[in-house]
Amino acid sequence: MNYQEILHRIYHETKHFANHGKVASYIPALANVPPELYGISIACLDKKCFSVGDHAVPFSIQSISKVFTFTLAYSILGDKIWERIDREPSGNAFNSLVQLEHENGIPRNPFINAGAIVVADILLSHFDDPAKVLLDFVREQADDNNIFYDAEVARSEKETGHRNYALAHFMKSFGNIHNPVENVLDLYFHQCSMVMTTDQLACSMLFLANHGTNPHNGNKVLNISQSKRLKALLLTSGMYNESGDFAFRVGMSGKSGVGGGIVAVIPQLLSMAVWSPPLNERGNSVAGFEAMELFTTYTGKSVF
Amino acid sequence: MNYQEILHRIYHETKHFANHGKVASYIPALANVPPELYGISIACLDKKCFSVGDHAVPFSIQSISKVFTFTLAYSILGDKIWERIDREPSGNAFNSLVQLEHENGIPRNPFINAGAIVVADILLSHFDDPAKVLLDFVREQADDNNIFYDAEVARSEKETGHRNYALAHFMKSFGNIHNPVENVLDLYFHQCSMVMTTDQLACSMLFLANHGTNPHNGNKVLNISQSKRLKALLLTSGMYNESGDFAFRVGMSGKSGVGGGIVAVIPQLLSMAVWSPPLNERGNSVAGFEAMELFTTYTGKSVF
Amino acid sequence: MNYQEILHRIYHETKHFANHGKVASYIPALANVPPELYGISIACLDKKCFSVGDHAVPFSIQSISKVFTFTLAYSILGDKIWERIDREPSGNAFNSLVQLEHENGIPRNPFINAGAIVVADILLSHFDDPAKVLLDFVREQADDNNIFYDAEVARSEKETGHRNYALAHFMKSFGNIHNPVENVLDLYFHQCSMVMTTDQLACSMLFLANHGTNPHNGNKVLNISQSKRLKALLLTSGMYNESGDFAFRVGMSGKSGVGGGIVAVIPQLLSMAVWSPPLNERGNSVAGFEAMELFTTYTGKSVF
Amino acid sequence: MNYQEILHRIYHETKHFANHGKVASYIPALANVPPELYGISIACLDKKCFSVGDHAVPFSIQSISKVFTFTLAYSILGDKIWERIDREPSGNAFNSLVQLEHENGIPRNPFINAGAIVVADILLSHFDDPAKVLLDFVREQADDNNIFYDAEVARSEKETGHRNYALAHFMKSFGNIHNPVENVLDLYFHQCSMVMTTDQLACSMLFLANHGTNPHNGNKVLNISQSKRLKALLLTSGMYNESGDFAFRVGMSGKSGVGGGIVAVIPQLLSMAVWSPPLNERGNSVAGFEAMELFTTYTGKSVF
Repeated sequence: MNYQEILHRIYHETKHFANHGKVASYIPALANVPPELYGISIACLDKKCFSVGDHAVPFSIQSISKVFTFTLAYSILGDKIWERIDREPSGNAFNSLVQLEHENGIPRNPFINAGAIVVADILLSHFDDPAKVLLDFVREQADDNNIFYDAEVARSEKETGHRNYALAHFMKSFGNIHNPVENVLDLYFHQCSMVMTTDQLACSMLFLANHGTNPHNGNKVLNISQSKRLKALLLTSGMYNESGDFAFRVGMSGKSGVGGGIVAVIPQLLSMAVWSPPLNERGNSVAGFEAMELFTTYTGKSVF
Repeated sequence: MNYQEILHRIYHETKHFANHGKVASYIPALANVPPELYGISIACLDKKCFSVGDHAVPFSIQSISKVFTFTLAYSILGDKIWERIDREPSGNAFNSLVQLEHENGIPRNPFINAGAIVVADILLSHFDDPAKVLLDFVREQADDNNIFYDAEVARSEKETGHRNYALAHFMKSFGNIHNPVENVLDLYFHQCSMVMTTDQLACSMLFLANHGTNPHNGNKVLNISQSKRLKALLLTSGMYNESGDFAFRVGMSGKSGVGGGIVAVIPQLLSMAVWSPPLNERGNSVAGFEAMELFTTYTGKSVF
Repeated sequence: MNYQEILHRIYHETKHFANHGKVASYIPALANVPPELYGISIACLDKKCFSVGDHAVPFSIQSISKVFTFTLAYSILGDKIWERIDREPSGNAFNSLVQLEHENGIPRNPFINAGAIVVADILLSHFDDPAKVLLDFVREQADDNNIFYDAEVARSEKETGHRNYALAHFMKSFGNIHNPVENVLDLYFHQCSMVMTTDQLACSMLFLANHGTNPHNGNKVLNISQSKRLKALLLTSGMYNESGDFAFRVGMSGKSGVGGGIVAVIPQLLSMAVWSPPLNERGNSVAGFEAMELFTTYTGKSVF
Repeated sequence: MNYQEILHRIYHETKHFANHGKVASYIPALANVPPELYGISIACLDKKCFSVGDHAVPFSIQSISKVFTFTLAYSILGDKIWERIDREPSGNAFNSLVQLEHENGIPRNPFINAGAIVVADILLSHFDDPAKVLLDFVREQADDNNIFYDAEVARSEKETGHRNYALAHFMKSFGNIHNPVENVLDLYFHQCSMVMTTDQLACSMLFLANHGTNPHNGNKVLNISQSKRLKALLLTSGMYNESGDFAFRVGMSGKSGVGGGIVAVIPQLLSMAVWSPPLNERGNSVAGFEAMELFTTYTGKSVF
């Protein structure tokens, strides 16, 4: 079977999982998304692309944006970034605040909310208009200018984002947020509101499968070592409190968002994006997780 | 450079790190090991072996034994084992007990002490003489009968193992230990006392690099999928609270012990073992960690 | 109204509360106690006694025994006892283990299980036969030799006491248990199995209302300052995670047990004991708590 | 000895303790207070007042203001206030956030910061100008209009109050803060900035010693039951993580602030205020704590 056939098979075998989870409901813009929408896309380093279902429908990428912001900050600071963020898995969400206290306001990794907020703070210190820089960066990686923020989503996130405010203020009490909390979270809520299709998302992560170099224009985003290390980070920490299970069952470096998207990478080969809004109890797309697992099962390809 | 040359180079570049850490001192048998001992071994699937330094000196493998006991239990129970242990990274040690309470006595993964104690309980329920079965199993994987328990170490572990008793009783209060605590810990302290050389250790993990099949006698230890999954588990959880850092800097699936040993695997290629007693603050061999990082740097080989 | 009339009134107004709670069921000897049994006794310093209902039926005093063991240990060690136990309220049970870890194995106060286990360890270090010494001590305070341990209860406690084993081993890992855990818990489970009536219980605590001196034989148990301080401890920590509420609603220094007993003291006046087996969610007798509140309401007497 | 003689004796015996602690330094207005300032005042229900040292020097009452705001809110809401705040001691500060999470955003009592922030939120919902209402209330209790907020302190508190922002946002995420966080904390930081002398402070708490009725004008602030209950709350929770020790050694219902003040009450008798800026590790005035202990020792008066 070629990838297109595999995608069709997976699509039909996993479509019913959209009935099992619950669509994120904390903001209207997410709650109103039809749960049956389902798209899968694969972008290969050899320029071939494959897709099925609603692969051209834009959705809110939410926490997947943390990969982009971290990449930007890492490319700027290099390993100095580890003075402000650790790179260990985080355990369960329940302990997040006590862990942050125990570790003096240093978040465990860049992909939990606390870590991503520190990353936003770094970008804010470095760029005059970080939201624009970020959007340009994502468009360049996706080789597609048709990517935007959803101002309505950003506003809703802000209104309900009390826990993120708590995290930011808490870290500021340890001196690990340098800019005003309001500004940091404004950037953070904007990044979460970014809207992309699975086609764009798969395309935008190809640099990670390509030793850190954008395959569309040949620009080096990260060096080889950094690119490997970012994939290691995603494998241990990219899927909230299900990272271990994702590594175990799927075996790819990936990142998920509460909008129902998941993106994952096989080094030197391809990038894959899936979108299905209903989430499991740990906040990951039910169908998306299953699709990723079937893909590595059917192809025998994973990092292990 | 071939592997032998690389090992020599690494050996000389990292030997001085033995001055930086602290040898485990909670039991005399570990405290008295000369800190300057240092050995590295590589076992390749093509039967070639390479080694340098004190590669033929036996040492206490301690927590590395958790890989063997888990492999045995996993081969018996298959995925039913996940009813009693989770497969998520564990966050920092500080939270271990509260996390265990929050998760109703289910340890986060098989490689933290709580998880390994449940694995010991499983083996005890399944075998009449699990300590003998385990030793036979390790000898078979290492293709070497010259491997033993150190009764003196086992006795010392028992005398100082109050925290492990606390963990076992705590899990028993949740019903997740089925045998008497005394018996379970007796097996656990024995497994930790196993004595091996880096040559034996590297050799004994080759089945993991070989799709789960013992390359010496062709016996299937785990199936391909189980073998991949165990490597995923080790990558996310094998190095205590430094698993993320090990994945990040080294990029191999590995397991460490407080005796100063580390073993790691590159799928379809090789298994590597290092031993240097002085430990860093997180309980991992300082020189061993550095040696592993240099190896993947010099060879360009890692899972990412 | 005199005390006898008040007791009758309270008895009838609170009897129905026995239908609201749940009898402790973790051991058969407690689970089988008829929930409708209900007794109240008051012992006054002027030698008058009042009682109503099942005041002469013996029941398992459980954690109330912690007052006796602590009194004994405090009378021996004086303020040196605070090197091994703190005297702060403990917050919710949920945090007990993490708190113990954070505070290096020093229990927050003598009335949580961890604290009482340290007290048992102290008694074991001091007496050849601490169980006998304790029983003699209680009989002397109660002025009644008809008080015993229930061996069946002690045995059941031991079989189900995994959490107490976990606590004891955990504290031993910090060096705060000096004797073998098995011996310490043997004493602890025995003290919990002591069987008394509310008449005996009220009588036995009169020394606390009497500046620390046994009113029956004039022997000084504690000095005035120690007696006041023990009452302060009971007020802040005597009722598990409901100590604040008991101080708030009742305003007496008291101690409860999962057998359904509560004993409390008004300085220079009286001691009161109530027994009704059904417990609320926080482990205190529902009817007993209500009866105590009504008593201080009707008499206008409390420490505040 | 009469109270004046006792105060002089205590003053001279405890003055040197001002050398032992550390003045709060998180804001300049506190850091710059001369550590040797030391005043003690007693206000009796029989209208007599006694004082010694710097009893007429105004200082920042800080957390002592929580007694005033809670009294106001309690007088308005009565026992409905317990829907939003619990009344249990809080354990150590270390666990404050995880405890708040475990208990769904309900603070353990009104005297930890989280609880006082909820109280401020209640006052904000009830009054158009709560800061003015509060100031008038305190002036009325102290029978003295010469009491003010220190705008400079309020501003400094706000600039450094990141943890309080974190707490407020965290509780808002559970729905337990109804007004905008900015407004709630503005009131909270103002209340903390209130400036009083020990004379005024002792005088202002007399209503608590007087069954809840202001002894200066006869106005009922709280009813008898509420007044008793507030004293119970203060005894179990008024001194941060030293409440148990204060109850144990002093035996009065009291409240402290990081400005170095402590106020305490003996029912039906008197109110006592002490001020000495240097604090112990748990944030309470070293000399103040000692003075209170000597007072109950010398007079034999305490609630126990």
